[in-house]
Amino acid sequence: MEKVLRFIESNRQRYIEELKKFLSFPSISTNPENKKDVEECAEYIKEHLESIGMENTRVYPTKGHPVVYADWLHAGSDKPTVLIYGHYDVQPVDPVELWTTPPFEADIRGNNIYARGAADDKGQVLIHLKAIEAHLVNNKKLPVNIKLIIEGEEEIGSENLDEFIKSNIELLKSDVIVISDTAMYDKEMPAIGYALRGLCYMQIEVTGPNRDLHSGSYGGSVDNPINALAHIICKLKDDKGKILIDGFYDDVLPLSEKEKKSFYDLKFDDEKYKINLVVDELFGEEGYSTLERIWARPTLDCNGIWGGFSGEGAKTVLPSKAYAKVSMRLVPNQDPDKAAVLFEKYVKKIAPKSVKVKIYNLHGGKPAMTPIESKWIDAAYVALKQAFGKDPVFIREGGSIPIVVTFQELLNAPTVLLGFGLPDENAHSPDEHLDLNNFQRGIVTSSIFYHELANLNN
Amino acid sequence: MEKVLRFIESNRQRYIEELKKFLSFPSISTNPENKKDVEECAEYIKEHLESIGMENTRVYPTKGHPVVYADWLHAGSDKPTVLIYGHYDVQPVDPVELWTTPPFEADIRGNNIYARGAADDKGQVLIHLKAIEAHLVNNKKLPVNIKLIIEGEEEIGSENLDEFIKSNIELLKSDVIVISDTAMYDKEMPAIGYALRGLCYMQIEVTGPNRDLHSGSYGGSVDNPINALAHIICKLKDDKGKILIDGFYDDVLPLSEKEKKSFYDLKFDDEKYKINLVVDELFGEEGYSTLERIWARPTLDCNGIWGGFSGEGAKTVLPSKAYAKVSMRLVPNQDPDKAAVLFEKYVKKIAPKSVKVKIYNLHGGKPAMTPIESKWIDAAYVALKQAFGKDPVFIREGGSIPIVVTFQELLNAPTVLLGFGLPDENAHSPDEHLDLNNFQRGIVTSSIFYHELANLNN
Repeated sequence: MEKVLRFIESNRQRYIEELKKFLSFPSISTNPENKKDVEECAEYIKEHLESIGMENTRVYPTKGHPVVYADWLHAGSDKPTVLIYGHYDVQPVDPVELWTTPPFEADIRGNNIYARGAADDKGQVLIHLKAIEAHLVNNKKLPVNIKLIIEGEEEIGSENLDEFIKSNIELLKSDVIVISDTAMYDKEMPAIGYALRGLCYMQIEVTGPNRDLHSGSYGGSVDNPINALAHIICKLKDDKGKILIDGFYDDVLPLSEKEKKSFYDLKFDDEKYKINLVVDELFGEEGYSTLERIWARPTLDCNGIWGGFSGEGAKTVLPSKAYAKVSMRLVPNQDPDKAAVLFEKYVKKIAPKSVKVKIYNLHGGKPAMTPIESKWIDAAYVALKQAFGKDPVFIREGGSIPIVVTFQELLNAPTVLLGFGLPDENAHSPDEHLDLNNFQRGIVTSSIFYHELANLNN
Repeated sequence: MEKVLRFIESNRQRYIEELKKFLSFPSISTNPENKKDVEECAEYIKEHLESIGMENTRVYPTKGHPVVYADWLHAGSDKPTVLIYGHYDVQPVDPVELWTTPPFEADIRGNNIYARGAADDKGQVLIHLKAIEAHLVNNKKLPVNIKLIIEGEEEIGSENLDEFIKSNIELLKSDVIVISDTAMYDKEMPAIGYALRGLCYMQIEVTGPNRDLHSGSYGGSVDNPINALAHIICKLKDDKGKILIDGFYDDVLPLSEKEKKSFYDLKFDDEKYKINLVVDELFGEEGYSTLERIWARPTLDCNGIWGGFSGEGAKTVLPSKAYAKVSMRLVPNQDPDKAAVLFEKYVKKIAPKSVKVKIYNLHGGKPAMTPIESKWIDAAYVALKQAFGKDPVFIREGGSIPIVVTFQELLNAPTVLLGFGLPDENAHSPDEHLDLNNFQRGIVTSSIFYHELANLNN
């Protein structure tokens, strides 16, 4: 490893030049006019992968933008196979006038490199390519078997990736998946992401009278679907943030003492959070801290509500229908299908008899977790600690990364989220940037990570 | 009166012919292309009023369609002055293909005359004109002083009538106002309308975080304005339909025993009502019948609600804002301004501290009532009983007729609602019609009504 680390140290400037080149492709996946740029970017990665010694490099076409694949599988069958996922497509650049320098002409200011895609996700993709290169150049081999899948549709919902994975399960089969597409907890605070919440997204349709009525001629004699819907929503969660759906918490995995302490040690600042969101008080499940509420507790939110008259002025309608979109964030070991069943049963139970209620299950995604006490996490811990010179923290994500669940379900492999971005690097906004120290330390981390994975007892 | 009644009896056929002529004007107030038709119709009424002996006939221009005025004021200062209100404009005719015969070529089928405006309101306007004519032809005088105001914008909200009344208070000053623009309770059941509900129409704006958030990254840690709004709405009315706003019922005039009995005697059919609205159960304030709930009890309805995502699919937003339009129907002696103050105070009291709430007062209208035990109602009672050969019933309206409140406030006079339409005469739909027996009995009623009013002790 010493040779590898020295090599990485001495190639810093070249890495930056290569990153600049990678960032020069306007690979905006949502813009049809950038279709050719996206394709050229895929081709560039493929050639780059070949140039560093990866094998079986191939640009797989999909119904949308292509997926780039490569592997190197000569570490031996006693070594784990690692699947590294990333994406080469980027967000649009509008409003382009708010950029200090052109989004596809990378500019270095201070320790940062500014360009669209710097943090999300080209910089993080290149981190792995350079770590791989460092091993192959210096040792002529990799410590583990590596597969790479770099897609071009992450920013538009990975529309065709599920299909690609389903059709290529043998090709992608691995022991662990590494995703570098998230952020560290804070500057100078390296982090390992080990869990994501799942989702159960429902729609409620409440029907009162069979047609819109005049609220004067009928008001008071027949139930109003909006009022009834409010009563339903009210009974989903109590005043202390606890979800009231029967059986909802049954499968929730409680936080371990180690996790609790680890969250507590992050010293999350509620006051700063309140100021940032411009709210006078926070609100969440009683008995849990903000980080616990976001990362490790399920919750329920209305994502939308509509019914009746919403224009200017005062139309006196007693509407026939009212609707709400209600989603639950799920945590390990909850299941979205079960949550949907419990939700429907409960809503039908509490709904006033004076209205009719229909429930639709719009979308579901499982939560995901790689136990902290796993060897994969241990390897990441050692690598981060060595590269950053400090103990990494364990973090979860409140949201879902659908691809993680897809991998979990189709490849049956755990995921380690090894993010080298920072929360304030403007991932989807003007002046996106990446801290070049973290870029460099990311390459060091990854190279050590592969090495550590090779030393694991399988 | 005998001569008058014989005259009315013998002129039945002529009345129908005149009604046909009146109905031939396509005086659709909302269609700009009918502007000339509306004006010609106003001119026709004016000439008709002159032809029957009314004086000071005049077509008053407004910013919109003109108001027709006429009076006859020689009954003596010891006799009451009656202001009769009606409108000569009509609703649009779409979908015109659903009409059995053309909407502006009146057709008689059975006892009914079919045409747009037959019941609403040309037929009812003509009833008064023919009753006046019968007196003037036979007695060369009217038993009371009469003022007539026939407007052309009722179907578009009487936009310019307030201004006209405000500018002509002396001209319109009267002791009682008679409006024939409503329906009888049922076929063969003449009715006196003596009360209308008022309105207090509010808007609630709830703000959670200062911007839309990702429901995964933030859900569970900060209050959701839609959930908070549902909690507010929930606390406005309990499960038994009682409004929970502090002090809301303080000024509510309870139903008298006479009114209760009178409503009860109408034998309102809840089962038929449920079938018509396609609901399994009715819902309203506990302890009151449907008619009491609609006519004599205040109520609260959400007229609209919106916030967050309402498109197809599952967008995981935790919105910044949610809104609801909430209106209260008020009964005598509630006041809309006071209701608005109570509403705002209560909502601010119950709103979760984790959101910000703004309240807007969008619209208000006072309730109106002419006591049953009044001489005006007595006169109407005698007239209806004699014309229809049965006791009339006392009814209220659940809605508001804004013009009644305008008269009440600006002219300080009570209103008697003497309606000769029927609830199923398709007032705003294809094949609008009027029962010609009721038309004829309406003329008889009105002629007796004026006579009775003259005999009152002032």
